[in-house]
Amino acid sequence: MKIAVIGGTRGLGEWIARFLKSKGFDITVTGRDEIAGERVSKKLGVNYTCSNTIAASQADIIIVSVPIDVTSSAIKEVAPVMKKGSLIMDVTSVKEEPSRIMQEYVPHDVEVLPIHPMFGPRIRSLDGQVIVVTPTNRGKWYNKVYNFFEKENARIIVTTPEIHDQMMSVVQGLTHLAYISIAATIEKLDVDIKESRNFASPIYDLMVDMIARIVAQNPYLYYSIQTHNKYTKKTHETFISIYKELNEMISSGNEEGFVKVMGSAAKHMDDLEAALGRSDKAISALTEEVNILKGSIGKEVGLRHIYSGKVHIGILKGLSPDFLTLEINGKKTKLKLSNVEILSDKEIYDLKVENYPHKTYFVSAVFPENCSPDIIVNTIEGLKGVIYASVDDMYHGSQIPSGKISITIKYEVINPDARFDVENLLKGFGAVIR
Amino acid sequence: MKIAVIGGTRGLGEWIARFLKSKGFDITVTGRDEIAGERVSKKLGVNYTCSNTIAASQADIIIVSVPIDVTSSAIKEVAPVMKKGSLIMDVTSVKEEPSRIMQEYVPHDVEVLPIHPMFGPRIRSLDGQVIVVTPTNRGKWYNKVYNFFEKENARIIVTTPEIHDQMMSVVQGLTHLAYISIAATIEKLDVDIKESRNFASPIYDLMVDMIARIVAQNPYLYYSIQTHNKYTKKTHETFISIYKELNEMISSGNEEGFVKVMGSAAKHMDDLEAALGRSDKAISALTEEVNILKGSIGKEVGLRHIYSGKVHIGILKGLSPDFLTLEINGKKTKLKLSNVEILSDKEIYDLKVENYPHKTYFVSAVFPENCSPDIIVNTIEGLKGVIYASVDDMYHGSQIPSGKISITIKYEVINPDARFDVENLLKGFGAVIR
Repeated sequence: MKIAVIGGTRGLGEWIARFLKSKGFDITVTGRDEIAGERVSKKLGVNYTCSNTIAASQADIIIVSVPIDVTSSAIKEVAPVMKKGSLIMDVTSVKEEPSRIMQEYVPHDVEVLPIHPMFGPRIRSLDGQVIVVTPTNRGKWYNKVYNFFEKENARIIVTTPEIHDQMMSVVQGLTHLAYISIAATIEKLDVDIKESRNFASPIYDLMVDMIARIVAQNPYLYYSIQTHNKYTKKTHETFISIYKELNEMISSGNEEGFVKVMGSAAKHMDDLEAALGRSDKAISALTEEVNILKGSIGKEVGLRHIYSGKVHIGILKGLSPDFLTLEINGKKTKLKLSNVEILSDKEIYDLKVENYPHKTYFVSAVFPENCSPDIIVNTIEGLKGVIYASVDDMYHGSQIPSGKISITIKYEVINPDARFDVENLLKGFGAVIR
Repeated sequence: MKIAVIGGTRGLGEWIARFLKSKGFDITVTGRDEIAGERVSKKLGVNYTCSNTIAASQADIIIVSVPIDVTSSAIKEVAPVMKKGSLIMDVTSVKEEPSRIMQEYVPHDVEVLPIHPMFGPRIRSLDGQVIVVTPTNRGKWYNKVYNFFEKENARIIVTTPEIHDQMMSVVQGLTHLAYISIAATIEKLDVDIKESRNFASPIYDLMVDMIARIVAQNPYLYYSIQTHNKYTKKTHETFISIYKELNEMISSGNEEGFVKVMGSAAKHMDDLEAALGRSDKAISALTEEVNILKGSIGKEVGLRHIYSGKVHIGILKGLSPDFLTLEINGKKTKLKLSNVEILSDKEIYDLKVENYPHKTYFVSAVFPENCSPDIIVNTIEGLKGVIYASVDDMYHGSQIPSGKISITIKYEVINPDARFDVENLLKGFGAVIR
């Protein structure tokens, strides 16, 4: 099956091309920048053409993944040349406009499926990710795509383009603009964010982090999410009028009015108790982490970088609010606290097993004949630093006293010192090492 | 030392009375509601009087902990009757107004110390809690109070009432009003919050939880936080004008202007990378939890209620987005997911050790004479379900073959089945159980 990803040379488009290529599809990406196109073509092993119409005329599925402002024109360009019986999808974060244009411009017998993947190009798989699907007609392609997403364990929401856009005017439109405005207000009032964090609770800290998260995004994308959704206007106007109304209530001493608005809004929320519990847990996960580290100074800790996945195991030497210092093989490494997560003892051990060189040793010892070799090797395997143990040989011979048996045990360790523990264990139970 | 807590019969005032009583101070609480007063007096073992002036005239320290609107009148009532050399503090969430009134109304030689504890009455200790202190003069009391907080491991911020109030107009004033307005907008637009969560990312989920957290608070308190801080007016006006400006940029197609505001606000944030990392970690802590539970269906899990601390250990039978079902001793219990946290294997084990009945057993076995009893008891202690093991007796007698020794080991288990493991271990190494 041939899939053309229009705008597949970067961002989400590139991610889609890579993902579908890994699933075995024949992929062609397009994009205006020929250098980027050749690079992606080589990197992902996909075809590249700078011509949207060439790619479109040969494809069974077209996925339009270009910035919102040029989505309509890209659709108008590719739709008319599509093959009979093919499918066109777009992945824009608004759905009404692209949906209408796709339906208008595709030839008869081409299926239209507007979708909104609610994730960015940093994810590794579709597992657990939300994809909103707004089918206009549910043909054979709809079922195929739906089944594909389902097999990938995505969370699929099927709705109409209208409901999607109304919902998004709140989920994205309102929250983005409110957060950007809070950040801009803090800037305008010249409040020092870092100082303000000192004054406040962990809840405020997390709020500020969420605000920072939003304003750190691509402002061009955030602008187009606002402008291409016809419902955001009403949402913003409603918000402004409510905020102004509350502010006036405060100025004029209208306590009753304020209490009524706040109480009524609270009643409309879905489950206040659950919200409290979840946010408490999110916050305690962050404080807990700092507490664990405080108690681990001078001890071995294992840390994983939350984005790269790189693991650092070493002795924790220092801890400041933002950084920590690990000593690894006598060398000090400074890591940013917010970028690493603490590994459990089991994870550290498993990683050591995986990454440290294993050494194999043999030990022969004389046991009473009525012993159980299985129990002996299991007990050895339970020692710290021992990965594996097995019976290599059992020997009844002239050198072995009667009523006794010599057992040779083969075992692997990650730390050669574990040899002493193995030998001490055997001697401790009265075995004689040969 | 006698401490009067004005308004000590409920909320934070009651918390302060309980806390200081536990530290050994002689506490008198006041409050208009005599029934509540008698109840608190009995519950906490403190004195109660409905007369603020009686309490104030006898106290070495007065702590004013009444709602903001009546703080000024309470101060005016108690300040004039205070003893020479005493201290007056207030714990209101604004500082300029009470600070000014306390200074104006106290007799000569009374020290004034306005503070703002940044926590509610749900906390258990001052450890790690933020307390903002805005001393107007730093006398002998200031040092005493500072040292007390320091010993309790509180995070103390010393600043002026003005800076405190300016900061709070953002930290509380702006964030509260923005969140309340978002919630009220969602209500007005009749958006179904639960449905909107389906459409969105875990980040949005956490945002909604934070909004719910704010609107679930006491609206009278939130109103007074707004009205008693003279800086909130300017903050709200700035916010409204920025929001309107951004909305106009969106309507009029002023992409450049929008991008500039958002980019500049982003630059003013303290550390975008850290904010991203921390919020990613907070979110992954929540998703991680669900993943662990999904993998634990049919297995034993331990859960702790995040508020009551109550622990439930049982077999996980079912998991829905909001609830989970545990089977404990054959009985099914339904728990709200947002209210419980998962215990680690080590925590479950420690709890079992603490709460399950312990059984003591003895085992006597014959070992080679050259064995090491220490190693044997350590190995037994390492077995699952065994809490403790020790050598009870060692015996060389006529019944014991030469070259052998009989050792009696005493051990405690939480699960009687562990006895078989102990005996199998000893037999496995060739010992003969007597």
